[in-house]
Amino acid sequence: MIVLITGAAGMLGRKLAERLAADAALAATAISRLWLHDVVPPAVPEGANVPVSCAVGDLAADGEAARLVACQPDVVFHLAAIVSGEAEQDFDKGYRINMEGTRALLEALRARARAPRLIVASSIAVFGAPFEEPIADTFGTTPLTSYGTQKAICELLVSDYSRKGFVAGLSLRLPTICVRPGAPNKAASGFFSNIIREPLAGREAVLPVADSVMHWHASPRAAVGFLLHAAAVDLSAVGPRRALTMPGVAVTVGEQIAALKRIAGDKVAARIRRQRDPFLEAIVTGWPRNFAPRRALALGFEADRSFDDIIRAHIADELGGRIV
Amino acid sequence: MIVLITGAAGMLGRKLAERLAADAALAATAISRLWLHDVVPPAVPEGANVPVSCAVGDLAADGEAARLVACQPDVVFHLAAIVSGEAEQDFDKGYRINMEGTRALLEALRARARAPRLIVASSIAVFGAPFEEPIADTFGTTPLTSYGTQKAICELLVSDYSRKGFVAGLSLRLPTICVRPGAPNKAASGFFSNIIREPLAGREAVLPVADSVMHWHASPRAAVGFLLHAAAVDLSAVGPRRALTMPGVAVTVGEQIAALKRIAGDKVAARIRRQRDPFLEAIVTGWPRNFAPRRALALGFEADRSFDDIIRAHIADELGGRIV
Repeated sequence: MIVLITGAAGMLGRKLAERLAADAALAATAISRLWLHDVVPPAVPEGANVPVSCAVGDLAADGEAARLVACQPDVVFHLAAIVSGEAEQDFDKGYRINMEGTRALLEALRARARAPRLIVASSIAVFGAPFEEPIADTFGTTPLTSYGTQKAICELLVSDYSRKGFVAGLSLRLPTICVRPGAPNKAASGFFSNIIREPLAGREAVLPVADSVMHWHASPRAAVGFLLHAAAVDLSAVGPRRALTMPGVAVTVGEQIAALKRIAGDKVAARIRRQRDPFLEAIVTGWPRNFAPRRALALGFEADRSFDDIIRAHIADELGGRIV
Repeated sequence: MIVLITGAAGMLGRKLAERLAADAALAATAISRLWLHDVVPPAVPEGANVPVSCAVGDLAADGEAARLVACQPDVVFHLAAIVSGEAEQDFDKGYRINMEGTRALLEALRARARAPRLIVASSIAVFGAPFEEPIADTFGTTPLTSYGTQKAICELLVSDYSRKGFVAGLSLRLPTICVRPGAPNKAASGFFSNIIREPLAGREAVLPVADSVMHWHASPRAAVGFLLHAAAVDLSAVGPRRALTMPGVAVTVGEQIAALKRIAGDKVAARIRRQRDPFLEAIVTGWPRNFAPRRALALGFEADRSFDDIIRAHIADELGGRIV
C-alpha cells in the first residue's frame, strides 16, 4: 500500500507521518512506501520502518497535483491548507490553496484508474453562530470566515466526487487541537493550548477570556487516531454524507484549568495570568462550543476520554513525561 | 439603475426580463437600462419601457464575466445554469458553468468599485435525503446530485463574498417551479407540471408516481416575485447567512389533482393517466417534500397562497384565461 500525505510538514502531518513510518501499516495492510508532500521540505521520520519519499511543491500550481499522484497512492491524507488567519487576510491565497488546491487534487485522483481512499482534514470552522447546542450532525454549515467557507466547499466536493466513484473520500471536521505543541502562535484560538503548554514548561500564559468559555478539543494523538481510523472505516456504512464531525472533549476554560491543577498542581496553574481581551472575546462567541457527533461515534471514531487525558497525552508525547 | 440578468433566455429569465421591462423600475428605483445575457440570444421583451441591451457569451469563458460587468450593473440576477439532469450527465460542464461561471461572475463584480446587489438562483436540490420534516432553515445542505453540490457551493461563495463586502449577495433556494410552461421536458420532476399543463391544454399527461407523493412548489409568477423582493430586501436584516429557502406550497400529487378538478372540472382531470414508474419513484423519494422557511417569510417573501392559485396563475399567464 502506497500512502501519500499532503501538508506533511505541518504539525499534524508530521505526527501522522511519524506514526505511519513506525507502524509500517495502515488499515491492516503493510505500507510499501510513504510519500510526504508540502510547500517546504517535509522531515523524513527518524528510524522509519518503511521507504519514505519527499516531494516539494504547490498543490494548486498547474500540473502539480497530477505529477504528485503519479506515485499511485492507495490512501491520500490531504492536510495541506492555509490556516484560518492567513485565509482571512489573504482572500485570493486562501481560495487558491484551500479550494482550488483541493479541487486540483480531486481532479488528479479522478484521472487515475482506481479510486483511492482520500481523507481530507476539515474543521469545525465550517460552523458559524448562532448554533443549536449541542450541534447535531444534521446542522447546516454556515461559516463566518473564508477558511470555514473553503473547508465547507471542500466537504461538498469530496462528497460529490465520492458519489461519482472518482475517489473514496471522507472529510473529518477536526476539533480545535489542544494541546498544540511548539511556540505560541497568533491564531485566535491559541490561548486554549497556551494556558496548558506554557505553564507546564515553566512559563507564564495569558488567558484573554472568561473561565466560562466552552470549546471543543482533541489532542494531537486523538487527531492522528481519527485519520488512521478514517483510512479503515467501512464507507458503505458512512453513506453519501462524507463529512463527519469528529468527537471531542467539550470543556470550559475553568475546567481546563482545574484539570491542569489536578495533574500538575496549583503552582503550575498559577502561571496563568487573566487579562481579558474584549476584541478576542467577541470573536470567541462566534465559535462552536459543543457537538453531538453521533455518526462518527457510531462509526468507531474515538475522542480523548477527558481533558485530564489530553494534558497527560501532552506531557507524555511532548515533555518526555516531565513537568517543570 | 442598471440591471443585468444572466440566463435571460431561460424560462425564469424571460419572465423576469418581461416584468422589469414593463415596470421600468426595481426596488422603488427607475431602471435606466436592462442588460440581458445568455449563451443564446435573449429575446428583447415586446413593448419594453426601458432601453434593453443583449449580450451573448459563456460566462465561464476567460474574460467574459469581466466584459459583461463593464455595463456597471447596480443589480445582477444570476440565473444562468446547466440544469440538474445535464449537470449529472456531464460532470465537467456542470462544474464549469454552475460553479466556475458563478465564481467568475463574483470575481468580476469584486473588481468593481461599488458592490452591486447580486441575486443568485439556488435550488432545493441543495438538500438530500434523509430529511427532517418540515426542513428548517438551519438544516444542512447534503446534496445528492452534482447540480445540488454546485448550487450549495455557490451559496457558500455568495455568503463569503458578501461578508467581505465584495458583493451584496443573496441566494434564493427556489421551490420546484410549477406549472412550468412550454413543452414537457425530460426533467425527472417534469410530471408535477405535466399533469396540470397538459390536461388544461386538452392533452393527456402521464402520472408516474403515487398520489401520496408530496412536493414543494412555486408558480413562475411567485418565483419572479421572490427575485424582485430580493432586490429590495434589507440585507442587514438577513445577516451573514445569505442563502434563503423560499416559501412554497407543499401539496401531494393527489391534492394537485383535486385542485385541478375544482378549477377545470372532472373532464380535464380525467386526462391524467396513472402509470407508475418504479425507477422515477425511487428518485422522487430522495427529494425534499416540505419546508419551514421562517427566515424568508419574516423577510417578506410571499408564496402562492394555495395550489389552486398556482393553477389559476397558469391559466391567466399562459392560456389567456381559457381552458380547453
